[in-house]
Amino acid sequence: MTRTLILLRHGQSEWNQLNLFTGWVDVRLTEQGRAEARRGGELLAESGILPDVLHTSLLSRAIQTADIALDAADRLWIPVTRSWRLNERHYGALQGKDKAQTLEEFGQEQFMLWRRSFDVPPPPLDDASEFSQVNDPRYAGIDGDMPRTESLKLVIDRLLPYWESAIIPDLEAGKTVLVTAHGNSLRGLVKHLEGISDDDIAALNIPTGIPLVYELDENNVPTGPGRYLDPEAAAAGAAAVAAQGAK
Amino acid sequence: MTRTLILLRHGQSEWNQLNLFTGWVDVRLTEQGRAEARRGGELLAESGILPDVLHTSLLSRAIQTADIALDAADRLWIPVTRSWRLNERHYGALQGKDKAQTLEEFGQEQFMLWRRSFDVPPPPLDDASEFSQVNDPRYAGIDGDMPRTESLKLVIDRLLPYWESAIIPDLEAGKTVLVTAHGNSLRGLVKHLEGISDDDIAALNIPTGIPLVYELDENNVPTGPGRYLDPEAAAAGAAAVAAQGAK
Repeated sequence: MTRTLILLRHGQSEWNQLNLFTGWVDVRLTEQGRAEARRGGELLAESGILPDVLHTSLLSRAIQTADIALDAADRLWIPVTRSWRLNERHYGALQGKDKAQTLEEFGQEQFMLWRRSFDVPPPPLDDASEFSQVNDPRYAGIDGDMPRTESLKLVIDRLLPYWESAIIPDLEAGKTVLVTAHGNSLRGLVKHLEGISDDDIAALNIPTGIPLVYELDENNVPTGPGRYLDPEAAAAGAAAVAAQGAK
Repeated sequence: MTRTLILLRHGQSEWNQLNLFTGWVDVRLTEQGRAEARRGGELLAESGILPDVLHTSLLSRAIQTADIALDAADRLWIPVTRSWRLNERHYGALQGKDKAQTLEEFGQEQFMLWRRSFDVPPPPLDDASEFSQVNDPRYAGIDGDMPRTESLKLVIDRLLPYWESAIIPDLEAGKTVLVTAHGNSLRGLVKHLEGISDDDIAALNIPTGIPLVYELDENNVPTGPGRYLDPEAAAAGAAAVAAQGAK
C-alpha cells in the first residue's frame, strides 16, 4: 500500500497581480486565484483522489485556496492543521517591492541570485517596516524562530521538522494528505522528496492551482515522479512562473 | 480574568430557503447565508472580540460560515477543530421533508412536539434513505454513536462530552473560543450554560449569523446573560426563527 500526498500551490494573489514580492505579507486571492482553487478542487473530485486531512500555512491565500478547493471536492469537513513552517519564503527587504523595479535597480544577476539561488537570502526586513510581521498575533508563538529574511535553504530548514512531526504521521496512519502552500515552501518539499540538487532546484517551477500527486513508499520516498492532475495546464503554468519578472 | 466564548449559528442554507427539514443532510449556504456569515465576521472585527481558536461541526454550512466570518475578521489562520458532536440535531425520518407539508400531514400538536419538545425524537431515519448519512465517510469514526434520530436531549447528551473535553481546555488556556454550529446544537449548549429548564428551552430561538458572546468564570459558568453583538438584528432574527413553519 503506497501513501498519497497531494501538493497544491495557491492561485493568483492580489500582489502576484501587481507583480510585487509578497513573502509573508498576508494578501488575499484575486477572482482568478479563487477560480484556480475551484478548478484544483474539481480535479481532485474528478480524479477520485480525495484528501483525508489538510495541512496549510498560516497565510490567508493558502487557507482560502484550501477552503475553496475542498468545497469543490465536497471535503470541507476533513481535519486541518496549520503551521508557519509551511509559509511562503520570507522575502526580507524585498517584501512589498515591485519585481520589475527591483530587477532594474539591482540588475539581472543580483535579482536572479535572490530569486533562485539556493542559499543567498535578500537583505533582512526591518522590524519597523510596514511589511514586517513581527507583531502579527498569528506568529505569537514562534519566538526566536521568527525570520526577517530567508533563502530556499532556510525555508527547507524550518519546513522539514513539520514534515517529519506532523505530515509523516498522517501518511503513516494511511491518510491521503493535502498540503496547500506556496511556490517556495512546496519547491523545498519537492526538493527533499525527489532528492533534487541545490543547483537543479533553481529550474523547478510549480504551477498554481493544479494538484501535484505523489505516491510514497513505507519510507516516505516517492515511488515515481510527482503527477499533475492536469499535465497540460501544469506545463503551461510552470512556464508562466518561470517567465515572471524576466521581462 | 473571565473567559470568552462566542457562539455563531450558520446563516440561511439551501434547504432553509426551501423550508425543508435538514438535520444532518449536508446542504450549502445560500448567497444570503454567505452575506450573514460575512456580517457576523464584521461584527467580530468591529467589536474587537477576536477568536483565538475555532470549533465547528462536520457540516459544510457551519464550516462555510466560519471560513467566511474569519475571512471578514482577518482570522483565517486560527487553529480549528471539527466534531460531529457539534452537528445539527438529527431530524430522523423528517430529514428531506417539507416543513409546511409535515405540519399539514401530522397536525400542529405533533409537529410542535417534534420541533420543540425536549425529549421526543421524530421516527428514526431508515439507513436506506437517500437522506441517511450512515455511509458518509466523514462519520466513519463514530461507529455505535451514529444517530438515526435525535431529540434536543439526545443532542445535549452527545454535545457535552465535546464541550468538556475539547472546548473547556481551550477556554482554560485563556483562549477566546468561537463555536460555529447550528440552531439546535447551540440551543443545547446555551441551555447547559444558562441552566435553562427542559420546559423553558422550547421558547429559546437563536438567530442566524449574529455572534453571541459569553463571559465565563473560572468554573465556566456565565457571569451574565449572553450578549449579541447586534442586539436589534438578533431580536428580529429570533422572532423570524420562532415564526418558521408556523404558517
